Amino acid sequence: ITVISKLERRTVAYHESGHAVAGWFLEHAEPLLKVTIVPRGTAALGFAQYVPSENLLMTKEQFFDRTCMTLGGRAAEEVLIGKISTGAQNDLEKVTKMTYEQVAVYGFSEKVGLLSFPQRYDGFGMDKPYSGQTASMIDTEVRELVAKAYNTTTELIRKHKDKVAQVAELLLEKEVLHQDDLVRVLGERPFKTAEPTNYDRFKQGFMDSEDSKSAEVDPSSSVGEAVPT
Amino acid sequence: ITVISKLERRTVAYHESGHAVAGWFLEHAEPLLKVTIVPRGTAALGFAQYVPSENLLMTKEQFFDRTCMTLGGRAAEEVLIGKISTGAQNDLEKVTKMTYEQVAVYGFSEKVGLLSFPQRYDGFGMDKPYSGQTASMIDTEVRELVAKAYNTTTELIRKHKDKVAQVAELLLEKEVLHQDDLVRVLGERPFKTAEPTNYDRFKQGFMDSEDSKSAEVDPSSSVGEAVPT
Amino acid sequence: ITVISKLERRTVAYHESGHAVAGWFLEHAEPLLKVTIVPRGTAALGFAQYVPSENLLMTKEQFFDRTCMTLGGRAAEEVLIGKISTGAQNDLEKVTKMTYEQVAVYGFSEKVGLLSFPQRYDGFGMDKPYSGQTASMIDTEVRELVAKAYNTTTELIRKHKDKVAQVAELLLEKEVLHQDDLVRVLGERPFKTAEPTNYDRFKQGFMDSEDSKSAEVDPSSSVGEAVPT
Amino acid sequence: ITVISKLERRTVAYHESGHAVAGWFLEHAEPLLKVTIVPRGTAALGFAQYVPSENLLMTKEQFFDRTCMTLGGRAAEEVLIGKISTGAQNDLEKVTKMTYEQVAVYGFSEKVGLLSFPQRYDGFGMDKPYSGQTASMIDTEVRELVAKAYNTTTELIRKHKDKVAQVAELLLEKEVLHQDDLVRVLGERPFKTAEPTNYDRFKQGFMDSEDSKSAEVDPSSSVGEAVPT
Amino acid sequence: ITVISKLERRTVAYHESGHAVAGWFLEHAEPLLKVTIVPRGTAALGFAQYVPSENLLMTKEQFFDRTCMTLGGRAAEEVLIGKISTGAQNDLEKVTKMTYEQVAVYGFSEKVGLLSFPQRYDGFGMDKPYSGQTASMIDTEVRELVAKAYNTTTELIRKHKDKVAQVAELLLEKEVLHQDDLVRVLGERPFKTAEPTNYDRFKQGFMDSEDSKSAEVDPSSSVGEAVPT
Amino acid sequence: ITVISKLERRTVAYHESGHAVAGWFLEHAEPLLKVTIVPRGTAALGFAQYVPSENLLMTKEQFFDRTCMTLGGRAAEEVLIGKISTGAQNDLEKVTKMTYEQVAVYGFSEKVGLLSFPQRYDGFGMDKPYSGQTASMIDTEVRELVAKAYNTTTELIRKHKDKVAQVAELLLEKEVLHQDDLVRVLGERPFKTAEPTNYDRFKQGFMDSEDSKSAEVDPSSSVGEAVPT
Repeated sequence: ITVISKLERRTVAYHESGHAVAGWFLEHAEPLLKVTIVPRGTAALGFAQYVPSENLLMTKEQFFDRTCMTLGGRAAEEVLIGKISTGAQNDLEKVTKMTYEQVAVYGFSEKVGLLSFPQRYDGFGMDKPYSGQTASMIDTEVRELVAKAYNTTTELIRKHKDKVAQVAELLLEKEVLHQDDLVRVLGERPFKTAEPTNYDRFKQGFMDSEDSKSAEVDPSSSVGEAVPT
Repeated sequence: ITVISKLERRTVAYHESGHAVAGWFLEHAEPLLKVTIVPRGTAALGFAQYVPSENLLMTKEQFFDRTCMTLGGRAAEEVLIGKISTGAQNDLEKVTKMTYEQVAVYGFSEKVGLLSFPQRYDGFGMDKPYSGQTASMIDTEVRELVAKAYNTTTELIRKHKDKVAQVAELLLEKEVLHQDDLVRVLGERPFKTAEPTNYDRFKQGFMDSEDSKSAEVDPSSSVGEAVPT
Repeated sequence: ITVISKLERRTVAYHESGHAVAGWFLEHAEPLLKVTIVPRGTAALGFAQYVPSENLLMTKEQFFDRTCMTLGGRAAEEVLIGKISTGAQNDLEKVTKMTYEQVAVYGFSEKVGLLSFPQRYDGFGMDKPYSGQTASMIDTEVRELVAKAYNTTTELIRKHKDKVAQVAELLLEKEVLHQDDLVRVLGERPFKTAEPTNYDRFKQGFMDSEDSKSAEVDPSSSVGEAVPT
Repeated sequence: ITVISKLERRTVAYHESGHAVAGWFLEHAEPLLKVTIVPRGTAALGFAQYVPSENLLMTKEQFFDRTCMTLGGRAAEEVLIGKISTGAQNDLEKVTKMTYEQVAVYGFSEKVGLLSFPQRYDGFGMDKPYSGQTASMIDTEVRELVAKAYNTTTELIRKHKDKVAQVAELLLEKEVLHQDDLVRVLGERPFKTAEPTNYDRFKQGFMDSEDSKSAEVDPSSSVGEAVPT
Repeated sequence: ITVISKLERRTVAYHESGHAVAGWFLEHAEPLLKVTIVPRGTAALGFAQYVPSENLLMTKEQFFDRTCMTLGGRAAEEVLIGKISTGAQNDLEKVTKMTYEQVAVYGFSEKVGLLSFPQRYDGFGMDKPYSGQTASMIDTEVRELVAKAYNTTTELIRKHKDKVAQVAELLLEKEVLHQDDLVRVLGERPFKTAEPTNYDRFKQGFMDSEDSKSAEVDPSSSVGEAVPT
Repeated sequence: ITVISKLERRTVAYHESGHAVAGWFLEHAEPLLKVTIVPRGTAALGFAQYVPSENLLMTKEQFFDRTCMTLGGRAAEEVLIGKISTGAQNDLEKVTKMTYEQVAVYGFSEKVGLLSFPQRYDGFGMDKPYSGQTASMIDTEVRELVAKAYNTTTELIRKHKDKVAQVAELLLEKEVLHQDDLVRVLGERPFKTAEPTNYDRFKQGFMDSEDSKSAEVDPSSSVGEAVPT
């Protein structure tokens, strides 16, 4: 059986702390439910669980903050450990997918324009429906958008460097942290939503019986729900 | 069950109002039947229903105005809410398809010329029948045509900003608006057709028994009939 | 049932008149049998029927004039109605096909040279047998050849503008015109063939029993026989 | 039944005469057996039959002269009739194939070099085994080689213009010409082979019983045997 | 039966010695278990066996050192024998694969950015999910990263040239070398890991019963375990 | 039945002599067993048979000399006959394959680098695993490497022009030449191998019973064994 090394456990803790802290200070990111370094299933070394998004509409700002939150793990590795690892692969895959959707499906890129090519993601073996020049333009837009999000994220992580370390060390100690643990370290989340959100409803149930509620978060259902390492 | 949030409901109302108002002031757009923020089926958050086009021929001008009307939702989001969302995806997909048809099938682009490549849309796994250079030229023409239509649309929405807001607020209140509701807010539609149109015949039946007539509008049949969000 | 509008009927009449008048004044075009605005089958709004070509050989000049005749409908829309419509789609498809054949199969383009790639049109899913550079050269030659033919056609239509209008108005009145109707409006066709042609033989039969003879013209058999709208 | 027109018959005669005269004055072309304007099968309007090549090796010079001979029909159309027709399509297809073989299979192009990509012609749906740049280099070499051969051919045809006309007129009169008919018009073929060739053996049999021998020439077996129009 | 020549045996010994010595002096490479010039199976002429990596995370530094260790065989051929052979093919294939993963899957290249395209390696017949421009950027990054690793490796081999020769000669004499043999020639490995590693545990078992333990190293399981020639 | 002409027989003799003489004076080429102008099977007009390579490793130098030896036939045609023919096609195909392997599989090109893409030759219908830019770089490297080998070869053939003619004339006389025939014309091969080689062992058997030994050379097994024309 594979045993996780001390160094790897530390890397996972900082990585997950990066997700948690980034999400905490990003207005349009989903609120965090719990963060843990206990592996879930075979793939993930740790994960941070968020209130599942029930949005029917996603704004450009929400996409951007979700991207930053997802890149928070890698940013924490780079800023606090000084080394990057393969641990962010799954995060990068999600970021790649969601950024292509913004640029080529939702019309969020001014250069590419108000065009939508969703068929691209269903068909297989299919020729791209656009020219090589457009494909190249889409790639460049995606690359720049991700680079911009990563800059924002590393700045955020650098600014809250001590907090990231504190959360990571607490994670190494307790293995699982809930929202109130984070409140103790990070203070109250600086954003309020005007109307009672799904989150509030969710949190209500969460307070009563954590495990059963938690089961409602289907980890396989969609991009925005959980950010495993 | 997913509950639509207040903010999303407001976004949908402004989006649908954008379609309705844009269509109202575009000479060659189909006349509106009703507009609603009551979701239809699983995909649409709201929709605006138009008199189904019975044109056997479509002119370049009709294509342009239909494109603007379809982009009206996104333009209203941008101009009045100041944020763009994923809600326009279906609109953009329609605009993409109809603009490629104008450029690569109907010979409406001077640069691409009087060539028609309709096979493109039937075959699958097929190599494009033209060169990469032509593919790139087609893409550029499509992009410029859509950009031009969106500029026209945002100007129109900006000019009628107050009307869009009024219609949206009325929608939030009444959920469904019919043509006479719009007449009260927007005044009579400023265009007349010379001869009795299909619309007139349609409206006649519509006055008598709205629901039964409405069933004649097959929502799946073609591009121009309805513009769901 | 779809009813054709007055405006559409007028567009069809001018479109068909464009085919007929263009063919009349082009030396190498096939002689016209009849022109009508009565729809044939589901696709066509009207059509002009020509003596089926029994040529075993086609010259470059015959291809050019046939291309112009096929573009005559669109040219008439543009010159006399001032609007272009989707009604020319089928014409453009034919023009596209026959011009690619001239350039890439029959060696009529000096730039592309005496090369013939007929396999292109049989196989499917096939890679083009030539490079992207050659594909681009072929496309450019096709585009320029079609543009040249359209220029010739619009000049011709402009020159005979009044005749096109007269034939169109007569079509709106009588719905079907035969060659002798055209002779009355346009005068005798200004070209003679040296030897008794298939046309003469055809016309002979045509005079005796129009309908039965007409049945010999198989509308589905080949490019040059009929030009439906 | 399709009847060949007088003009077409004349075009065919000049086309076939072009093949025959070109081959006559090209040292490395196969000697002519007969030339006819009686159609063979469904595709050919006429054809020139050559002694089947029994070469196991083909030199670059033989390829070049065979290319010129194959282009002789089109050259005669252009030089003597002043019009080019679709009648050369089959010739161009052969020229295209044999020139690609020289450049991409037999290593006869200095630029492309001593590389051989024969798999190209077997596989289907296959990606080219070389880059787009190489594909473009191959195309350019092919195009230049064919252009050079056509220049040589039109010069040859221009030089022997009167002979081409004489042979063509004789063809229109007699429909089939044998080698001795050509000798009467063109004089003895100006090239001798050093050793008794297959041709000599062939001719021997040919003298005895033309038709039966002629049956030994399998028209479908290979590129160089016959040049139907 | 194929008999290995003396020269080939010598090449194999230097190749394997190159792997062993490179790995010895690279901090982040896996520690060596044994190195041998006795062929294993049909493909390998010799191999160096390493402690199987049980890392759940791989850092960029670990990838780099593993790349250098894998290139150590080719570097030893070039530096000490002065000739390169086909013996490194399998090494190069591994290096190619692992470097593409760093650049296109793990986001280790700054130019390509934090994008991940893992689907590329599963699907077959699939179009690349990115543009030709991005494909070219990925290739360039891979090429530069491999070139950098090879420079580092040849420098290292040059620096330890005498040691490589000594290990190679010892290999020719004894055919199999274990870690303590290397310690005698190369001295203690200059790197320590802070905590007891899997290697220590592994070595423990290895000391007791080498052959049975050795069987636990599944030679087919993954990239980093063994480097056969 | 196809009878080989005197001229073709002569070409074949010079072609085979080119292989034999080139191999004789290239240090790293395999030693010759016999050379003949008696056709083997249906494809080959003649062939030169070499000691089958039992090398487990091939060096860059061995690849180069084998390439030159394989190009020796074409070089002899060009230098001594002054004409090139299709007779080298099979040689060029082998050269193409082995040079692509050096550049894209064995990492012998500095520009392309230490990358290996062997999957290219197994899969079918597969997209190349690298970009168009890399494909173009590989093609250019292959082209330059082959051009360099051909230059070396023609220089070698020019230098030994008289010997090539002598061997060819002897071949025309005797049809089959063995190694000792070549020794009489060319002198002893100027290279010795240090240790008893497979060749020596082979030659031993060859002296005893040529035909039976010769049967051990499986003509279909691999690239380097025999060079049929």
